[in-house]
Amino acid sequence: MNSITGVSLIGFAKGQEGGGARPYDPSKRAFFGPEFAWARPEEVANALQKAQDAAPIWATLGHKPKADFLRLIAQGIEDNAARIIELATRETALPSGRIQGEIGRTTGQLRFFAKLVEEGWWRDVRIDHSDPSRKPVPKPDVRSMLVPLGPVVVFSSSNFPLAFSVAGGDTASAFAAGCPVIVKAHQGHLATSECVGNIIVEAVRQSGLPEGSFSLLFGPGRSVGTALVTHPTIQAVGFTGSRSGGRALMDAAAARPRPIPVYAEMGSINPMVILPGALTDRSQLLAAGLAGSVTLGNGQFCTNPGLILLEAGPQTDTFLQQLGSELAKVAPGAMLTESICHEFLGGLSKFTELPEIAVHTKVEATPGQVGPILLTTSGQDFLAQPALLEELFGPATVAVLCNGIEEITKVVLALDGQLTGTIHASPADYEQVKTLYPILAGKVGRLVHNGFPTGVEVCHAMNHGGPYPASADGRSTSVGSRAITRFSRPLCWQNTPEFLLPEELKESNPLGLLRLVNGTWNKDLPE
Amino acid sequence: MNSITGVSLIGFAKGQEGGGARPYDPSKRAFFGPEFAWARPEEVANALQKAQDAAPIWATLGHKPKADFLRLIAQGIEDNAARIIELATRETALPSGRIQGEIGRTTGQLRFFAKLVEEGWWRDVRIDHSDPSRKPVPKPDVRSMLVPLGPVVVFSSSNFPLAFSVAGGDTASAFAAGCPVIVKAHQGHLATSECVGNIIVEAVRQSGLPEGSFSLLFGPGRSVGTALVTHPTIQAVGFTGSRSGGRALMDAAAARPRPIPVYAEMGSINPMVILPGALTDRSQLLAAGLAGSVTLGNGQFCTNPGLILLEAGPQTDTFLQQLGSELAKVAPGAMLTESICHEFLGGLSKFTELPEIAVHTKVEATPGQVGPILLTTSGQDFLAQPALLEELFGPATVAVLCNGIEEITKVVLALDGQLTGTIHASPADYEQVKTLYPILAGKVGRLVHNGFPTGVEVCHAMNHGGPYPASADGRSTSVGSRAITRFSRPLCWQNTPEFLLPEELKESNPLGLLRLVNGTWNKDLPE
Repeated sequence: MNSITGVSLIGFAKGQEGGGARPYDPSKRAFFGPEFAWARPEEVANALQKAQDAAPIWATLGHKPKADFLRLIAQGIEDNAARIIELATRETALPSGRIQGEIGRTTGQLRFFAKLVEEGWWRDVRIDHSDPSRKPVPKPDVRSMLVPLGPVVVFSSSNFPLAFSVAGGDTASAFAAGCPVIVKAHQGHLATSECVGNIIVEAVRQSGLPEGSFSLLFGPGRSVGTALVTHPTIQAVGFTGSRSGGRALMDAAAARPRPIPVYAEMGSINPMVILPGALTDRSQLLAAGLAGSVTLGNGQFCTNPGLILLEAGPQTDTFLQQLGSELAKVAPGAMLTESICHEFLGGLSKFTELPEIAVHTKVEATPGQVGPILLTTSGQDFLAQPALLEELFGPATVAVLCNGIEEITKVVLALDGQLTGTIHASPADYEQVKTLYPILAGKVGRLVHNGFPTGVEVCHAMNHGGPYPASADGRSTSVGSRAITRFSRPLCWQNTPEFLLPEELKESNPLGLLRLVNGTWNKDLPE
Repeated sequence: MNSITGVSLIGFAKGQEGGGARPYDPSKRAFFGPEFAWARPEEVANALQKAQDAAPIWATLGHKPKADFLRLIAQGIEDNAARIIELATRETALPSGRIQGEIGRTTGQLRFFAKLVEEGWWRDVRIDHSDPSRKPVPKPDVRSMLVPLGPVVVFSSSNFPLAFSVAGGDTASAFAAGCPVIVKAHQGHLATSECVGNIIVEAVRQSGLPEGSFSLLFGPGRSVGTALVTHPTIQAVGFTGSRSGGRALMDAAAARPRPIPVYAEMGSINPMVILPGALTDRSQLLAAGLAGSVTLGNGQFCTNPGLILLEAGPQTDTFLQQLGSELAKVAPGAMLTESICHEFLGGLSKFTELPEIAVHTKVEATPGQVGPILLTTSGQDFLAQPALLEELFGPATVAVLCNGIEEITKVVLALDGQLTGTIHASPADYEQVKTLYPILAGKVGRLVHNGFPTGVEVCHAMNHGGPYPASADGRSTSVGSRAITRFSRPLCWQNTPEFLLPEELKESNPLGLLRLVNGTWNKDLPE
């Protein structure tokens, strides 16, 4: 099943061949494999129609077939791991250990959502019983729970060819909520996308689910992507990528006759405050840890720490020397795509041309590769130069040397919304931390204490999202179990007879769910 | 405290006098009382600055002072009930029994949210413990809960001068989430708004809360409203009103440099299907119940049943006669405002001029008043005439006589998103009901069985909201405990020491909250 043919997958049908672009190997700077065909308008229309037809079946799909389907995808990915590693390493220049890790994360996410679907508490079931004798009017029986929104479009990311791509977090959470999914593949890993897409199509077949449960379309965001997002069939959008790309989708979705939610995860500069006590206690350890976080995956993480806030002084100068030395140990490498490389080098040039910026450490690289870079500026200069609020997506970080905690606070207050904010502190710093914590909290989706923001744990408590422009919508997360609520809405049943209620809402609680009944959570459930 | 002066309340300060409009008595068709001053740009800016200053205090406000504050407002409304009834009946032409009922609902809502705040489970606390020995990387400690978005603007409704107005559901749920609130008063009940606004200001004072916790601004939506919604301080918007007004706010909010959510509840036509078996069993009862629902509050409810779908035939003809007779018993009355009356009569003219529409029953009214109206059309004509999808906000309903259940289904599929959808059925209809239920479910926020959609129960399970254009955002409700989530977002703490964690997240669970710990809901809580 998994030969690469270069065509879109429109339900169980294949798109026409020819006319797009070939997969690219950024390490060798060479194309390989067959030409991928961009989805034609009628193919996009077919995928939409099939998703529309599948939606009512998905809306009432039981938790067991849904969970089985998610596990079948995970199994398919594991069965094809060797092939996926071969394709993904070639297309992204990421090492095989990283792709292996991402396979684990992707299959873990699928099984995490399968378990969530089986447990069922995500439905947020609420029941208020009737009181026919209430005056002046009888109280009705009211029950509600979350139900799926309908067909969803997922735009794959560049930097997670598996975990935020065809069978990644957005797709898993949309399926878990009960939504058919159309994926718009990222141009940076076409062959990997087709390989994983075939695995999902096969899982749809084996599960006996409707054909329109899943489609995978290749093509430019501007044509194929826009056609999907503006189509009335689509009820929500998941996206991971650049701010300009995400904002364009937000604007298109908001301008529809019937607006729909866009969950765009657009990255950020992830400020990190390192307080003096922490430097006194563990300067070298912090330098090594930070260098590792800045250069992980060649800096191509949306949680990459791009802004380090420090109090100016000799201790900080020593730390920067240590950080520079650690960064200099990291070998340059190819980036995920030519255009990401181009963007990074362009952004870097803009930064280094600013009079406010000094280059502290720069690892030279051959053309097609990039090496780690440490830039510095002062708190005052940072506050005067709004261009420094932009993200440099790559192995670069900017150290801001501030005039005491007051200026650090001013810089934090000047920042846009962020995915994460980190504080490194020792007990000597705790008074300052107490002041800084609530200020940083207002800017971020996740506070990290004495750690590094890269490496997003997939768990119930995780929040991966933050105030705009980190995310389109800081009210939601793209990682963890809360992600399922992005693709669902409450629906209420009033005075509905038992036989018409879904299992989740029946009086006898046949699924044994945690439910809010007359204002009290039922806690006497079987384990 | 509660003399009416006609000025905006900007925290503890008063706006300048003069220059706007006087309260209007729609029954007497006459102005009364002092001139209300429209808030000047510098007053709007002051209210925003005060809200901004109050937000950090509200962000970490404990549940006890928050709940006490909400109860103090409720108490203040009860203490001033006589005055409120006097002003509100005069400004809205609604009878005193209705205003008395709305006082009960409004104070009930405030106390409902006070209890929710004390119970604390709305925080959705999730904790995943660390595992330092995990390979290849240690697992961090991750904790998260919902936190407030920040300052919120609430646009009062015309038709609920208390329950969806200054101290109504949007205000109560925003305060409960921890957000300062600026209310833009509705022009239809200026004096009532000032009276209730003074009660809230007094509660802010008595509670020792910051001045910017609450402001009340008078003025046109186009100037004062737009200035608020487009200001960077504002983080979310609540609105109840017309589709054009709601959509304008949605568009303004989406076009901001930093977009924000708008929760606009814009009403709908609330389709009701009456199946043949139900008509056979209880035609006269249904006619009386439906007439009551259509004319409740002179038809000025967003859940008013404006579209009745029936199978054509002699039984339905009899039912329409019965319905017409019941409607004819209802006396005409003044509407809430002159402009609502004007809109209703204009919309009605457009409908009755359509060749597809026949007037079945029309209660004649004197100028300034409106009487109940029953219009009819066929299923085929309805499907051919998109103008009939518009809401007639008033005591009117359109009966659509369909050619069997297939045509009823087609009409349902042609509808826009709705707040509610109702089915009246007897056991003889159950096969048809099973088919109709999921189709109607896809269009609505609330399914009503053998009942009437007017009368929205304030309870945990209620959903008052529906797919666009019923609401801006079908993922949320403006009634019931889920409303608190509209004004909150998840925030995550990673590896944070206990002393920096909020009470809700501390390991010892000092508040005794229901929490998701390592994937399991802790059910062994004290009652």
